[in-house]
Amino acid sequence: MKFTADRATLLKALAHIQSVAEKRNTIPILANVLIDANNGHLSLTATDMEIAVVEEVPAEIHTPGAVTAPAAVLYEIVRKLPDGVEVELSHPGGEAQLDLRAGRYTTRMNALPVDDFPSMVAGDLPHQFKLNSGVLKSLIDRSRFAISTEETRYYLNGIYMHVTEGEAGGLLRAVATDGHRLARVETEVPAGASGMPGVIIPRKTIGEIRKLLDEAPDEVDVSVSDTRIQFGVGSITLTSKLIDGTFPEYQRVIPSGNNRTLRVGKKDFSDAVGRVAAISQERSRPVKLVLSRDLLILSATSADQGTAKEELDDTRVTYDGDDMEIGFQARYLNDITDQVSKDVEFVFADSSAPTIVRDVDSPSALYVLMPMRV
Amino acid sequence: MKFTADRATLLKALAHIQSVAEKRNTIPILANVLIDANNGHLSLTATDMEIAVVEEVPAEIHTPGAVTAPAAVLYEIVRKLPDGVEVELSHPGGEAQLDLRAGRYTTRMNALPVDDFPSMVAGDLPHQFKLNSGVLKSLIDRSRFAISTEETRYYLNGIYMHVTEGEAGGLLRAVATDGHRLARVETEVPAGASGMPGVIIPRKTIGEIRKLLDEAPDEVDVSVSDTRIQFGVGSITLTSKLIDGTFPEYQRVIPSGNNRTLRVGKKDFSDAVGRVAAISQERSRPVKLVLSRDLLILSATSADQGTAKEELDDTRVTYDGDDMEIGFQARYLNDITDQVSKDVEFVFADSSAPTIVRDVDSPSALYVLMPMRV
Repeated sequence: MKFTADRATLLKALAHIQSVAEKRNTIPILANVLIDANNGHLSLTATDMEIAVVEEVPAEIHTPGAVTAPAAVLYEIVRKLPDGVEVELSHPGGEAQLDLRAGRYTTRMNALPVDDFPSMVAGDLPHQFKLNSGVLKSLIDRSRFAISTEETRYYLNGIYMHVTEGEAGGLLRAVATDGHRLARVETEVPAGASGMPGVIIPRKTIGEIRKLLDEAPDEVDVSVSDTRIQFGVGSITLTSKLIDGTFPEYQRVIPSGNNRTLRVGKKDFSDAVGRVAAISQERSRPVKLVLSRDLLILSATSADQGTAKEELDDTRVTYDGDDMEIGFQARYLNDITDQVSKDVEFVFADSSAPTIVRDVDSPSALYVLMPMRV
Repeated sequence: MKFTADRATLLKALAHIQSVAEKRNTIPILANVLIDANNGHLSLTATDMEIAVVEEVPAEIHTPGAVTAPAAVLYEIVRKLPDGVEVELSHPGGEAQLDLRAGRYTTRMNALPVDDFPSMVAGDLPHQFKLNSGVLKSLIDRSRFAISTEETRYYLNGIYMHVTEGEAGGLLRAVATDGHRLARVETEVPAGASGMPGVIIPRKTIGEIRKLLDEAPDEVDVSVSDTRIQFGVGSITLTSKLIDGTFPEYQRVIPSGNNRTLRVGKKDFSDAVGRVAAISQERSRPVKLVLSRDLLILSATSADQGTAKEELDDTRVTYDGDDMEIGFQARYLNDITDQVSKDVEFVFADSSAPTIVRDVDSPSALYVLMPMRV
């Protein structure tokens, strides 16, 4: 195998690839990247056995062949090469080392045989559709914060993506919950998606695909089976296993009778939450909301440090429900307001019941937040 | 006590102060800032019993008095207040809590009595001089990387600042070493400093004073006794204990007979060191330099990963000594080249003897580096 490629091109591909490769060396080959210059073009592949990323890279191939080399070291070296340099990789085959040459710099890296590199079989992916990459980004960004990290509830360790019937037609929904809060974001169902099964996409996959979306073309290809999901993002194909479990009946958690509505500017609200929570050193940093007509008083108490309080009056809030008090974790409040563009709406039932939160300017996202005693 | 101050002014002062206050709460009062509005002006003080920082803060004092409050919480709260807001702090005295008010935000913080706050006595500081703040910055920046972190050799845990006689007159020198490398930076002795004792300034003090220098006026006041050093930086006074020990006779470590001179661009050299070291995962990342007439070959070897090599030829280096090989830790090489402006000069004796390193454009700094076997 022998090819030359531009350093910047190679670096970009290795940056995508190397984050999927396993850092902890339990199975050495998983720390490697598969460099395949057969079939007239160059492709780089990394896998952790759950996710596989393949990227086509423009290169001039002199001799076809394939080899695997340590992803992190290769990335580090290419990153440190001067910009604009041409990189030559060559491998005589067999057990030999991989040679990299760039100007006066050469390195000879230990390689592992291609045959040991695990191939991830995507299998038949019967449901295929295109999704606007901005829409996919928004589905992910507005729901991923609610993904559970509790390993025992493995079926909550991802985003549940599924198709459902809305009032105005079919919807593609992304839902995540950790039992304390829930995020449900939806978009019009894309052509070809309507028959897809509900799938739980693992957290790591969400992270990897999200990174690729920052430089994605307008549209992303999505293909789904019962056990796999595949994203085609330009010259990159990411294939992932799905979480084999049943996502809970989340609709039952979303209350329908809440009727006490508070509206407040997202920035006014989250700044005030930050300031009152600053008095508390507790991990959960509980914040109390005291509500009366067009008045919101936020407060927090810490046995060690003291108390803090801030008023948002009728120049900042509207509230038309009965007087009430309710408490939430500061972080949970701000995780949601971080996703809101301008004004946030809370719809309460009472101080111990789940609260609905919405972005006033974007009805496609809905959040549910459990209160805590304060 | 009651005063009002501008939020930005207060924040800037608390930012300086709070990094000195103890984070770990072994002695609760050390986590507090002393807020003193007696004597017609406001001053904030923090101490860890080794260092004390006092800052004068412009404020409108309504009622004189003093109190102490948790530095980290106060900083966090003021940081989160909106810019431009007026902050009012008031304390009725005694065991009461401290009230902070800013717009519609109020907080009531637990306070500790002023009498418990340890005062650090600077004592008589007979040696006083002014130092250009840019010069002090440069003395610190070019020597601090060589400070030892070995606690058993406590007398190396700081920068040794002392006065000596140079060829062209008196010199003020900053020296640091960890036994593997040594940095010696000097400047013309300032008026008033010539009789000062040699002092070892602790690492934390160096870090705190360095932070203050980023926004310092042109000149800094320095006062020294046998046991204390004090820096006056604008409205801030930092007083520190000195390390009570004897700094080694460092001049004996600086070789005088080295005569094999290599000159190379700092960037060419450090980039090449980074690239060849990238093959190694070891902490020390040893790099070998093979020298022959106007040619430098850098290389590194890792049993796990392979080998890397880069040549810098006569377009990049000049070398006129005998052929030789010598090894250094990559990090030690780059710590020095990071301080060099353009071209770096190495003067070798042989492959096992200490090497002298200099910034070609700045004779005021000299470095000594011990080789390692490669």
